[in-house]
Amino acid sequence: MKAEQIAERYIALWNETKPDARLEGLRAGWTEGARYVDPMMQAEGIAEIDGLISAVQERFPGYRFRLTGRPDGHGAHCRFTWALGPEGEKPPIRGFDVVRLQEGRIAEVVGFLDAVPGG
Amino acid sequence: MKAEQIAERYIALWNETKPDARLEGLRAGWTEGARYVDPMMQAEGIAEIDGLISAVQERFPGYRFRLTGRPDGHGAHCRFTWALGPEGEKPPIRGFDVVRLQEGRIAEVVGFLDAVPGG
Repeated sequence: MKAEQIAERYIALWNETKPDARLEGLRAGWTEGARYVDPMMQAEGIAEIDGLISAVQERFPGYRFRLTGRPDGHGAHCRFTWALGPEGEKPPIRGFDVVRLQEGRIAEVVGFLDAVPGG
Repeated sequence: MKAEQIAERYIALWNETKPDARLEGLRAGWTEGARYVDPMMQAEGIAEIDGLISAVQERFPGYRFRLTGRPDGHGAHCRFTWALGPEGEKPPIRGFDVVRLQEGRIAEVVGFLDAVPGG
């Protein structure tokens, strides 16, 4: 799978607020024991990651993730930058993720933050 | 260890052309089974990583790595950008690395390239 596709599906999942569809997306595109870590949160396994995404959506109602720049990858890894904010406004939160795939599914995400409000 | 320190030691190691000192640095700062991967090369274990660094130094004689921007980290992970080129000249090669530590030693490096000659 190309880096663009991986990144687009990843962002779509973070924007998916319907619980069933989100869980389905996780089960289809992530490994069962997938790990996620960023400066503020960490999770292991589909259920924990689903809970984490849901918590972020609840914390920022109406916000949407979008890709910024061009995703880039090699072998099992890809990287991309993203922004989070209300639609049509300059997004206040920006970050960067590195994803590791295993047999075409996301097995690990390491996230970093590039901009946070007041940061 | 702070992200700055990790990144500085990492860059110093890539610039270390004395085989004994380089191997000593790897043994002190990396895990025995450490893995390295970037778009062009991969290596596993101290000996392979040592060979990889040595090969890069031979390919680019007189070039030096330097950090660019400010290293940034959380938990076991840090990220930083670097440049490679002859001293005193605009470096033709630029890249980005994410490092994972294990008990204070580098266990994994995932590298990406931001600029290559003709790229």
